[in-house]
Amino acid sequence: MSRTLPTVGILGGGQLARMLALAAAPLGIRTLAVDATADACAGQVSGLVVAAWDDEAALAEFARQVDVVTFDFENVPAATAERLAGRVDVFPNPRALAVAQDRLSEKTLFRESGLNTPEFAVVDTRDDLVAAVGRIGLPAILKTRRLGYDGKGQFRLKAPADIDAAWAALGDAASGHGLILEAFVPFDRELSVLAVRGRDGAFRTWPLTRNWHVDGVLSLSLAPAPGTSDALEQEAVAHARAIAERLDYVGVFALELFVRGNELLGNEMAPRVHNSGHWTIEGAHTSQFENHIRAVLGLPLGDTGVRGASAMLNWIGEMPDPAPVLSVADGHWHDYGKEARPGRKVGHATICATDAGSLRAKLVEVGAALGREGQVAPAVEALG
Amino acid sequence: MSRTLPTVGILGGGQLARMLALAAAPLGIRTLAVDATADACAGQVSGLVVAAWDDEAALAEFARQVDVVTFDFENVPAATAERLAGRVDVFPNPRALAVAQDRLSEKTLFRESGLNTPEFAVVDTRDDLVAAVGRIGLPAILKTRRLGYDGKGQFRLKAPADIDAAWAALGDAASGHGLILEAFVPFDRELSVLAVRGRDGAFRTWPLTRNWHVDGVLSLSLAPAPGTSDALEQEAVAHARAIAERLDYVGVFALELFVRGNELLGNEMAPRVHNSGHWTIEGAHTSQFENHIRAVLGLPLGDTGVRGASAMLNWIGEMPDPAPVLSVADGHWHDYGKEARPGRKVGHATICATDAGSLRAKLVEVGAALGREGQVAPAVEALG
Ligand SMILES: Nc1ncnc2c1ncn2[C@@H]1O[C@H](COP(=O)(O)OP(=O)(O)OP(=O)(O)O)[C@@H](O)[C@H]1O
Ligand SMILES: Nc1ncnc2c1ncn2[C@@H]1O[C@H](COP(=O)(O)OP(=O)(O)OP(=O)(O)O)[C@@H](O)[C@H]1O
Ligand SMILES: [Mg+2]
Ligand SMILES: [Mg+2]
Repeated sequence: MSRTLPTVGILGGGQLARMLALAAAPLGIRTLAVDATADACAGQVSGLVVAAWDDEAALAEFARQVDVVTFDFENVPAATAERLAGRVDVFPNPRALAVAQDRLSEKTLFRESGLNTPEFAVVDTRDDLVAAVGRIGLPAILKTRRLGYDGKGQFRLKAPADIDAAWAALGDAASGHGLILEAFVPFDRELSVLAVRGRDGAFRTWPLTRNWHVDGVLSLSLAPAPGTSDALEQEAVAHARAIAERLDYVGVFALELFVRGNELLGNEMAPRVHNSGHWTIEGAHTSQFENHIRAVLGLPLGDTGVRGASAMLNWIGEMPDPAPVLSVADGHWHDYGKEARPGRKVGHATICATDAGSLRAKLVEVGAALGREGQVAPAVEALG
Repeated sequence: MSRTLPTVGILGGGQLARMLALAAAPLGIRTLAVDATADACAGQVSGLVVAAWDDEAALAEFARQVDVVTFDFENVPAATAERLAGRVDVFPNPRALAVAQDRLSEKTLFRESGLNTPEFAVVDTRDDLVAAVGRIGLPAILKTRRLGYDGKGQFRLKAPADIDAAWAALGDAASGHGLILEAFVPFDRELSVLAVRGRDGAFRTWPLTRNWHVDGVLSLSLAPAPGTSDALEQEAVAHARAIAERLDYVGVFALELFVRGNELLGNEMAPRVHNSGHWTIEGAHTSQFENHIRAVLGLPLGDTGVRGASAMLNWIGEMPDPAPVLSVADGHWHDYGKEARPGRKVGHATICATDAGSLRAKLVEVGAALGREGQVAPAVEALG
């Protein structure tokens, strides 16, 4: 190839990098992912550099090969992102990444932007934890400030007697990653705002997505979130925009919200394409993956209109039988090519339909065929 | 990767193989293309073996690495396809490929299946050509029986005086590829039936596509073909089905038709995914590429319903500025990552809309922004 195609470098080589690569290719854009493991699943469809985050020589060579750097994974060390930013454009910028990496700075930003959050307190010692439980009350969740994902690094406290177990589980992390105690919010619903901001400041959101987690891991998403008032949607979008502008954010991000009555509370932001936006591959005119690629390269953003209603089912641990999803009209199968492993996100399915009623019927059918009535149930109910 | 993912082998590594690979990847299916050139554009997103069709050792090794073999290119030597079929499943089967490779056997099959064709005569010598012109009349088109594509290997005769030039251009091919003289059909419209047949005989078609060629090369497609009666569509689909069943065809194919008044004439069939079906990537629930992969692997076929109206613009020779297409709502850009070269298919764009009126408006806008009013004009008129 003597023609030089633009290349997007991606830190992390998991399924998000894989889907970014698959969205980039039709545009004539190449990708080069960096991952510590040689069998990172993005490597099946993208260039892959096997290197650790502190491998300066490998990352310098990587920077030479790419036009822009972005993330499949937000827990890249800030030092790595900053070192790369000295060589090549990095989007989102390392400061935005650093804020989103730390639950304390993230929640502080939310509050400064006018978005309430659950009550929280920083916990550095066991005494801090006791004091925080006294102030915030129970139930509450102790979380590592950094490096948590998919509900990992969390401990739920229901009674004061749980303090010992919580400290035993996470006390070691206090000095390294830091800890935070959050009030457990008895939310009515969880929503995410999936948003994209261009290099020129252009800002778009997809319709709000409703999400259901099981054991702290996303299980099911539904978009557009049924029964969401325009006022609530506008408020959520305004928060996302304010946060993005404060961070001078470029690319796709997800703002995870709890809804309690009419109130929105900010849970966290994912400074990257997000599991709750996978439905956009088939359900929207432009997917989150394509718009992220467009944003970081400074191309015009694609429109975020939808084709109807979509539901996304996450496959955790192992892939189910594909036949029921492949057989349903407008059903879409995604197998990340990963080894099955307990708790691992190995794939997802998206079911699209022109309207809520037909989506509901398809979910009932697919849920029954897969023996996963429980997984689809919340969406079936919400669409009812 | 110790997990073994199914692998589809593809003979030919051009843009069709590239788009097959991109459709296979989300399903967790790998691809391995074979091409004589190392910079074949499928190699950017797929495994690639660089080998000639007669490289028996390379092809035997290729056969060992794949679960099934299919084609991006119909002019693979029949001997190569048959040799592979002795080692691994090959779809479409080599007999179907052989029939579709030769305009004589193809037209004979069409007629046997009840589909009329333009008048034609086999031409082996200059005398045959003179006699054929006498019988069929002029204007007519002299074509190589084999190895033609994108209007190559064709000569249009308008007057008896053109016989010399026609023979000078194509006479050499008479002994190798064979020649055929076809009556030039003053058609009203060109349509294609894009169809898929599964290993189990399941058969589906996408809505008819209307096509416009410039200098024998596809320039523009519109789907669903506006103003097509249900009766015509049913007749076209019945012909496609009859042909597929006679060939025990497995996979996607396109049947190219001329419409003259109420009559359908068969031009040719492409035994593979086809340029007139590129709009299905965004315009249909399941793309031709995904359904071809599903068909050859024996997976359930996906539904061929559409999301509205779509137009596909081919980029020949060089890529235009992407911005106008990227900026229009539901506009999609495809750059095959190939070197620009006169006459070469280097990319395409698909514009989708919910209805004909809005598709028309978008085409007018994109055509003007690109300075390609002429390319979009036939669709603008047909949608008017
Ligand atoms: N304070 C809280 N109150 C109630 N539920 C909570 C709270 N914090 C977390 N959860 C539940 O646990 C889920 C995962 O928590 P969180 O988003 O903090 O974890 P994570 O490890 O960052 O997960 P992911 O990366 O998948 O978003 C939330 O989506 C929510 O369902
Ligand atoms: N007999 C004919 N009468 C009128 N037009 C014709 C005739 N044969 C070919 N054409 C015109 O030329 C175009 C290309 O011809 P044909 O399909 O035979 O070529 P090809 O090289 O196989 O092209 P491709 O592979 O792109 O389909 C047709 O789509 C049609 O527009
Ligand atoms: Mg979360
Ligand atoms: Mg043709």
